[in-house]
Amino acid sequence: MRDVYIAGVGMTTFGKHPERSAESLGWEAVRGAVKDSGFDRDRIGFAACGHVRQGPGIGQRTLRDLGMTGVPVVNVENACASGSTAFHLAWQTIATGQADVALAFGVEKLTDISGPLPLDQSLVMPSMGLVLPGQYALIARAHMEAHGVTPEHFAKISVKNHDHSTGNPYAQYQKTFTVEEVLESRVIADPVTLLMCCPTTDGGAAAVLCSDEVLGEDGAPHVRIRGSALRSGTLVGADTDLSEPTSLTARPARAAYEMAGVEPSDVDVVEVHDATAVGELTHYEALGLCEVGEAQRLVDEGETALGGRHPVNPSGGLLSRGHPLGATGVAQVCELTWQLRGEAHGRQVEDARIGLVHCMGGGPNGLDGDACVVAVLERM
Amino acid sequence: MRDVYIAGVGMTTFGKHPERSAESLGWEAVRGAVKDSGFDRDRIGFAACGHVRQGPGIGQRTLRDLGMTGVPVVNVENACASGSTAFHLAWQTIATGQADVALAFGVEKLTDISGPLPLDQSLVMPSMGLVLPGQYALIARAHMEAHGVTPEHFAKISVKNHDHSTGNPYAQYQKTFTVEEVLESRVIADPVTLLMCCPTTDGGAAAVLCSDEVLGEDGAPHVRIRGSALRSGTLVGADTDLSEPTSLTARPARAAYEMAGVEPSDVDVVEVHDATAVGELTHYEALGLCEVGEAQRLVDEGETALGGRHPVNPSGGLLSRGHPLGATGVAQVCELTWQLRGEAHGRQVEDARIGLVHCMGGGPNGLDGDACVVAVLERM
Repeated sequence: MRDVYIAGVGMTTFGKHPERSAESLGWEAVRGAVKDSGFDRDRIGFAACGHVRQGPGIGQRTLRDLGMTGVPVVNVENACASGSTAFHLAWQTIATGQADVALAFGVEKLTDISGPLPLDQSLVMPSMGLVLPGQYALIARAHMEAHGVTPEHFAKISVKNHDHSTGNPYAQYQKTFTVEEVLESRVIADPVTLLMCCPTTDGGAAAVLCSDEVLGEDGAPHVRIRGSALRSGTLVGADTDLSEPTSLTARPARAAYEMAGVEPSDVDVVEVHDATAVGELTHYEALGLCEVGEAQRLVDEGETALGGRHPVNPSGGLLSRGHPLGATGVAQVCELTWQLRGEAHGRQVEDARIGLVHCMGGGPNGLDGDACVVAVLERM
Repeated sequence: MRDVYIAGVGMTTFGKHPERSAESLGWEAVRGAVKDSGFDRDRIGFAACGHVRQGPGIGQRTLRDLGMTGVPVVNVENACASGSTAFHLAWQTIATGQADVALAFGVEKLTDISGPLPLDQSLVMPSMGLVLPGQYALIARAHMEAHGVTPEHFAKISVKNHDHSTGNPYAQYQKTFTVEEVLESRVIADPVTLLMCCPTTDGGAAAVLCSDEVLGEDGAPHVRIRGSALRSGTLVGADTDLSEPTSLTARPARAAYEMAGVEPSDVDVVEVHDATAVGELTHYEALGLCEVGEAQRLVDEGETALGGRHPVNPSGGLLSRGHPLGATGVAQVCELTWQLRGEAHGRQVEDARIGLVHCMGGGPNGLDGDACVVAVLERM
């Protein structure tokens, strides 16, 4: 396995872009990443495009609009982890010597999706008939019962991420809320309220990865990928203890930490999949940022806020940067690249050296989902 | 790069299966391939699922129904080359040492797709507004003008593939036609007639691949993958000479031959992407089975029929085995595996040692498509 580096990143602002095509969101991101990398775009030997609902050939259509034809392209879908899966494949392609420069990008335009998915294709647990907010509500209740978590803890996470995003010009929202406002917003699935859920978002994000053999050709600062792991979910039954960390996050996290040779305590900055604030709280435990049953302490003590020991989602996360499905995992990589290069102006984690990205895709496996990617990044 | 072997294959009958779910088509194929491989299904360390229109998470949903959870799954889409792309990724995963046993499968249920794709996501050349049969008709006309090809040549290819499929119990059709019947069937885009076009099909196909390190654990006969290459299309302009071999086929073919260390003349049996009979004729030249401008000679002399020098599509091809998009590329691998193991009863190419699979995905790049995979297989 060769060392792999992030040579450049780029993304669109996340938000509602009803006037733009999915392709245009994609190529704005790709163009930015290629420019940031310093590589000529003809150097790219492989491209993976993550998306969920943009139709066949979106990767090729996007690159065609940039005149980037001929490059091998794979369109990948792993629910909300589609972008992360594209990143993982691009990493693997370079790590295993299949290419020296590769492109991972993701794109999603959700504002004009014409209708809901058929029920059998939607993110519903077939065994329980639960849609995603309902699944998160069950998990929330289990943590409340087992560990003394309160709805205020979830609200504080939402407040934190919205606070963070006021420093992120790419975020869908740059607006702060109080704990009371979060708690008093519309109930989606008790105790999950509207402001504890990610919004509907359009956007694109891209990253150019390269091998150590071509590193430095361009003179740009670099971030090294020290480990990346993809896993899928296992079945969750009625007897599952929902107050336990989800194995879908814990298994790739262990693999990525081991590959990287780092401990959770080494991590300086984290981007996690906060599709809801409930998810973020549970991921603290599954990622090893604290012991099981202690996530609420991290929240109360501000350890995951900017300035804390393990700042989580300095970008604003899915909750406030927004969640254009296929683009999200790559946007997390963009954010950590900027953080590790010291370029995250307005939301910079001081002297960040080790970063962790975590993105998971829900799905019919329900609480344990379809796919999860965890990767460890390091400042050079 | 490690040697990679095909340890087992399985597929459903192709055809109309209105009463079955896409998942059930998938798991019938996967179950067959796993059983054929002799490996315990828990040995599978990676799975790639090719599909075009089966919705998010189809790979995970299919495997979940078999109790195969936890395995890393990537859902891939590359238009009609989706299954081939899944095969290519599974090959690459083993070749590069990421897993010892991997699963490639494809599934598509087209009979109950609820409506056409939005125009901007369909397989239309945006610069010319041409749907696929129209593109093939242009190519046909160019070959007729430049090389003296006649509609009878296309009809003969359809007759040949329908003849072949009478020996294939997995084929959608087991019915022969005369040249006259093909020519007199309904005109789709002159000179392309209905019987020169592939039908609408449901089906699943799967292959279990393994490294040399675990080879022989199961005692089953094996086929070695000597080379596999994925490429994407380049733009086609109004000044393109459509009588030339498409570069989308020629480029991965050259790469696969080079990786395999074989020449086109070494190839004993071929499965090509005959979405139309016109396509098959042009692929003869792009794959190097003959010189440019000589494809019609192969047809006239029966060189690509069973018993000829280069039997093409002994399965019946897309034209008669059928074309369930994401399953097709994997079904081609199933057929060649059976051929190389001497198990293609009723359509066996005698003493076949080297096989070639070719599958391409059309798309908005139009005549030059989104993706093409060519792989060289060898009998052990």
